Amino acid sequence: MQKIKYGLIGASGRMGNEIIDVMNEKQNELVFKYDVDGEWQKELPEILIDFSLPSAFDTTIQYALSFNCPLVCGTTGLNGEQLIQLKNTSQKIAIVQSFNFSVGIQMLIKCAQMLTQNLTDWDIEISETHHRFKKDKPSGTAIMLKNAIEKEVNISSLRLGNIPGDHEISFGGLGEVISIKHSATSRRTFAEGAVKSAYFLLNKRNGFYSFQDVLFT
Amino acid sequence: MQKIKYGLIGASGRMGNEIIDVMNEKQNELVFKYDVDGEWQKELPEILIDFSLPSAFDTTIQYALSFNCPLVCGTTGLNGEQLIQLKNTSQKIAIVQSFNFSVGIQMLIKCAQMLTQNLTDWDIEISETHHRFKKDKPSGTAIMLKNAIEKEVNISSLRLGNIPGDHEISFGGLGEVISIKHSATSRRTFAEGAVKSAYFLLNKRNGFYSFQDVLFT
Amino acid sequence: MQKIKYGLIGASGRMGNEIIDVMNEKQNELVFKYDVDGEWQKELPEILIDFSLPSAFDTTIQYALSFNCPLVCGTTGLNGEQLIQLKNTSQKIAIVQSFNFSVGIQMLIKCAQMLTQNLTDWDIEISETHHRFKKDKPSGTAIMLKNAIEKEVNISSLRLGNIPGDHEISFGGLGEVISIKHSATSRRTFAEGAVKSAYFLLNKRNGFYSFQDVLFT
Amino acid sequence: MQKIKYGLIGASGRMGNEIIDVMNEKQNELVFKYDVDGEWQKELPEILIDFSLPSAFDTTIQYALSFNCPLVCGTTGLNGEQLIQLKNTSQKIAIVQSFNFSVGIQMLIKCAQMLTQNLTDWDIEISETHHRFKKDKPSGTAIMLKNAIEKEVNISSLRLGNIPGDHEISFGGLGEVISIKHSATSRRTFAEGAVKSAYFLLNKRNGFYSFQDVLFT
Repeated sequence: MQKIKYGLIGASGRMGNEIIDVMNEKQNELVFKYDVDGEWQKELPEILIDFSLPSAFDTTIQYALSFNCPLVCGTTGLNGEQLIQLKNTSQKIAIVQSFNFSVGIQMLIKCAQMLTQNLTDWDIEISETHHRFKKDKPSGTAIMLKNAIEKEVNISSLRLGNIPGDHEISFGGLGEVISIKHSATSRRTFAEGAVKSAYFLLNKRNGFYSFQDVLFT
Repeated sequence: MQKIKYGLIGASGRMGNEIIDVMNEKQNELVFKYDVDGEWQKELPEILIDFSLPSAFDTTIQYALSFNCPLVCGTTGLNGEQLIQLKNTSQKIAIVQSFNFSVGIQMLIKCAQMLTQNLTDWDIEISETHHRFKKDKPSGTAIMLKNAIEKEVNISSLRLGNIPGDHEISFGGLGEVISIKHSATSRRTFAEGAVKSAYFLLNKRNGFYSFQDVLFT
Repeated sequence: MQKIKYGLIGASGRMGNEIIDVMNEKQNELVFKYDVDGEWQKELPEILIDFSLPSAFDTTIQYALSFNCPLVCGTTGLNGEQLIQLKNTSQKIAIVQSFNFSVGIQMLIKCAQMLTQNLTDWDIEISETHHRFKKDKPSGTAIMLKNAIEKEVNISSLRLGNIPGDHEISFGGLGEVISIKHSATSRRTFAEGAVKSAYFLLNKRNGFYSFQDVLFT
Repeated sequence: MQKIKYGLIGASGRMGNEIIDVMNEKQNELVFKYDVDGEWQKELPEILIDFSLPSAFDTTIQYALSFNCPLVCGTTGLNGEQLIQLKNTSQKIAIVQSFNFSVGIQMLIKCAQMLTQNLTDWDIEISETHHRFKKDKPSGTAIMLKNAIEKEVNISSLRLGNIPGDHEISFGGLGEVISIKHSATSRRTFAEGAVKSAYFLLNKRNGFYSFQDVLFT
């Protein structure tokens, strides 16, 4: 597999650390980083990965354009205006944007859509369990799942200990039940999704892509 | 095991049928029954089991007193006045009364109480899943479970297909989770609990007992 | 929905009873039956459903040919020769044959195949739980599931109480896990699958179909 | 809560780091450490915690005796002779020794024992799921669980991704199932158990204790 020289915005954050670990294992080289401690650069990156904060968004865009390289954008909490700006920027450089870089969640969604289409008269329930510190109820991913199946379904939210994130969707017919459950066991999974997106972008000049595009095209 | 001559009120109902099945397997003999089709009697019963309706309550009490035999009362929906009358009657005959004759649910409660006492700073969540036709939310058993642990905990209720009844209580600490789940796979379990209560009462002259007394004394 | 006049071979068996229940609810009429008690006929059936024993196989074929009507064949334990005979017969009449008429299991297989194709470097585990009386380990459905994903995976078999049948397939990556679980809550689900197959066959003159064909064409 | 001056053997290991984190949160002070990088000492510790290797066992004992302070010993892989030496040493200083400092696993065992005693004719199944790198099958904790209930039960072992460790014990009767599941979500839980043991030992002069003693006395 090709070795990549990459840049990282938000390098000192939790996700930043995970991404460095995954990139190291694949013998890719960090040549640029930017975070609360400032900027460090060794060479021009071939790709830029961003897991920072909405407040650093403008800086991210400027760096991506000045490097003229693809961008993986995983920063959460971006507003509508910033998303539009990102799409506009994708006319010049290739961008993958997602709020969830877990392969498994994308597969959960695909299974859920298939079951919803085939089991039309079955009941559907979504439930999610997260650590006690999570403030939003239900989780963004649960809402994303509900939107993906295009049904008005009940979402149950449980808050327990420090569970990274479980999502389950259950289908109940008269005589049988199918449940699909996704559990994140660490943040590493999100880092791997971001790295997969980086490889996906390597030979692309421009365009705006979702994480589903990365996985299924 | 001793062979019992028993009477059954509500003999033609769903629970009545299950009880007859369980009693037959133990080679006990039905010598009296009463239901919508009227009364049938062959001999004097040694014990009376009642799974009928609150409207038949007075009849049940009269039969129990006239037979002067112990009574297992599993009729749901009894009001406060009827429960008091039942307790008064227990001065003359031995009575087991419960709204849930499942051994497993009683064990679930005992485990939940032990965990609650030992894991004082863990989060607790209750969830229950029942068939789509169930009208009350949350289930009575979930409320019973919440009362048993004496904590203000969240109850999630899911409605799916024709699931007889699942109850789960989860405890989450920072670094680990324990969940206890009970699933009823058929009504038979309730019939077995009632029959166990019948054996428990055989040598008792009077007194008012719960299903927990049957199991743990 | 069209009212059907149907025949049933194995009418007095457990599955036979379930099928009569489901057909009654849809106001279809039983006009022919055959079982250990002999033959009963009122009219010529438009479709024949067979849940009997391999020993009755020849009789089933003769009836189907003499009625010149489609056949749903759910008898288990048929040998290779009988299956070939069934396929030959399908040149004259339309036939659906399956060892498992549960919609959910078919959906489980479809999801499992999709996940296997997309999560190529994830670990896979199959587990199944059945009642204590089940003699074969692992279950035929677990083997069917393993064959469907075309991978050498471990199957864990648990035997507990009177569980009708649970099947789970889990996929584990570094950082996340996806599990799909199917639970049968009653035999009714298999009856519904057979009835669905009957409707599928109504306008077909001949041909050999699987239950997957019924569901997805 | 009392502030403790503590010593740590194996300070630079994974468990060592977790213990420092938990102790820091409780504002306890590390005053002595020993690991592959050598010895560092600021003051005399009130308690010594050891999560190192069997090869450092003699050094640990010497330090504990020279400090004349209680010892929490969580090193795994100690042989029989070393365990006897540890017990002998406990005549002079108080010692807690365990191969598993998870509160939840101890509670799982207590629940499992209670259920085994009360549900004598139910089927029992143990299953455990761990990361793909785990070499032993079944896990030591699963064996410990089986020993604790003193029954010959089947253990199913699944290997998936990087799951830290799940253990489940299920009880199946005719009509109902109870399952208790423990999932470790991080090593932190073991660090907390070790710290709990440290507090337990603070006022003890000598004696040999298990982690169950810490939790339930």
